[in-house]
Amino acid sequence: MSLDENWFTEIHHGTGSAFSLQVKGKLDEEQSPFQKITIYDTTDWGRFMVIDGCTMVTSRDNFLYHEMMSHPVLFTHENPRHVAIIGGGDCGTLREVLKHPTVEKATQIDIDERVTRLSEVHFPELCESNGDPRAELLFDDGIKWICEAPAASLDVIIVDSTDPIGPGEVLFTPEFYKGCHEALGQRGMVVQQSESPLLHMEIIEKMHRSLRKAGFDDVRTLFFPQPIYPSGWWSATIGRKGGKIEGFREADVEQRPFQTRYYNADIHRGALAQPEFFKQAVAGWG
Amino acid sequence: MSLDENWFTEIHHGTGSAFSLQVKGKLDEEQSPFQKITIYDTTDWGRFMVIDGCTMVTSRDNFLYHEMMSHPVLFTHENPRHVAIIGGGDCGTLREVLKHPTVEKATQIDIDERVTRLSEVHFPELCESNGDPRAELLFDDGIKWICEAPAASLDVIIVDSTDPIGPGEVLFTPEFYKGCHEALGQRGMVVQQSESPLLHMEIIEKMHRSLRKAGFDDVRTLFFPQPIYPSGWWSATIGRKGGKIEGFREADVEQRPFQTRYYNADIHRGALAQPEFFKQAVAGWG
Repeated sequence: MSLDENWFTEIHHGTGSAFSLQVKGKLDEEQSPFQKITIYDTTDWGRFMVIDGCTMVTSRDNFLYHEMMSHPVLFTHENPRHVAIIGGGDCGTLREVLKHPTVEKATQIDIDERVTRLSEVHFPELCESNGDPRAELLFDDGIKWICEAPAASLDVIIVDSTDPIGPGEVLFTPEFYKGCHEALGQRGMVVQQSESPLLHMEIIEKMHRSLRKAGFDDVRTLFFPQPIYPSGWWSATIGRKGGKIEGFREADVEQRPFQTRYYNADIHRGALAQPEFFKQAVAGWG
Repeated sequence: MSLDENWFTEIHHGTGSAFSLQVKGKLDEEQSPFQKITIYDTTDWGRFMVIDGCTMVTSRDNFLYHEMMSHPVLFTHENPRHVAIIGGGDCGTLREVLKHPTVEKATQIDIDERVTRLSEVHFPELCESNGDPRAELLFDDGIKWICEAPAASLDVIIVDSTDPIGPGEVLFTPEFYKGCHEALGQRGMVVQQSESPLLHMEIIEKMHRSLRKAGFDDVRTLFFPQPIYPSGWWSATIGRKGGKIEGFREADVEQRPFQTRYYNADIHRGALAQPEFFKQAVAGWG
């Protein structure tokens, strides 16, 4: 079966697989100073954002990613008040973070303002909390921002970035994690998307080693479905300073004053379950 | 990006999505009395079986599906001795079932002998237990077999079938589930693949209702990744007679005398975690 021009296909290079969505039309396209951003309307997945040919976000399935990038760490930290989001220009992670009543300030630092401006037009539901007085939207270099942040000024850092190839690569280095470590307060946590457990184990291994090297005392990987990304099976890796990642504020999850579509206490525990092959690999990473 | 003739693509009709694997060549192809079976060699996923244009199994990711179709039910049942597998012609589920020392007999009933014969050639690792004296391979109508099975003669029935469209449709009906119910002993369980939680909730709902209608006392859905199937996020639904599905033989899982690649006790518990949208939907199914 071949796909005609009504399909957008992303080939996942180096994995021998590709994923396609059927599109009804192109709603927007522009070359920002940093990248080419395209917004499609799809037949079944709502709006669909592509950056430099890479599948980024759809209306239909982004709740999985955005909820799992934010709620597990925020409900693990005892009292997350100050949160930074590196990347995250579509503002979906920011929206989830701001659902937490403990959060006093959430700063999103994305290099490309155009991603946010186009999201405001085409994904208004993801941007509905951009006007929250606790939200600060900066368009700047996130690494520089983290490295200049006052020591111990943050409780949680969420790295909602692109893949570790191209411009996002520097966000996967020990130097960046060292900056995160210094910016975080005691028991602070960093979480970063860490690709597919089936396809990218070498990336996850490198992240574990780099986070440990940067001084994080505990490192854990969360697993969750993410249909539009390679293999449909995705992960996020967490580093914690001066504390364990296991265990979370279960009573607060049960009584949360907001809606979720994927996340709940059982899902939190389930996401921490390590597949057998993963458990064996981690044991070997020392 | 468009895909050339070096890619096999399956369009997931009605979902607006498609998945492709890069192939190095066609190893085998035949029209059996029932269906067209094609075996490809791929660049990164090993061998790859396609039936009537539908992606069935690859060497690389089948462990997820085969382990999750067998170990959760077999470790939930107190003493699974007699197991039937409806479909399952690639023999990967049979292999997992026969790893359980409690199993005295496992009967696989697939309509199409050619699927098994081609699997023996191209997926020898999945067929390595076909010669086990406890294994019985029948090539027959699985529904007829279940309906003629002596009452209370089975402990676990695994329905490892194609999608509920075309020839597999009858395996998703209350009549078939009634036959399973009668063939199962007290506290017996049936498990069946139940498609994608993101894309096929109406199928899962129908299965829950049909299993209840057929007399099953508890019905639960398990969630797991399955990269080559639509959305990469898959499920299996379990019905149990005279018992709950929650809880399993954890000590036996910890001391299991065999290897797994995905399944373990944490994964078992995690697979039972219901996403928030699913929990809310189930509550409405009464």
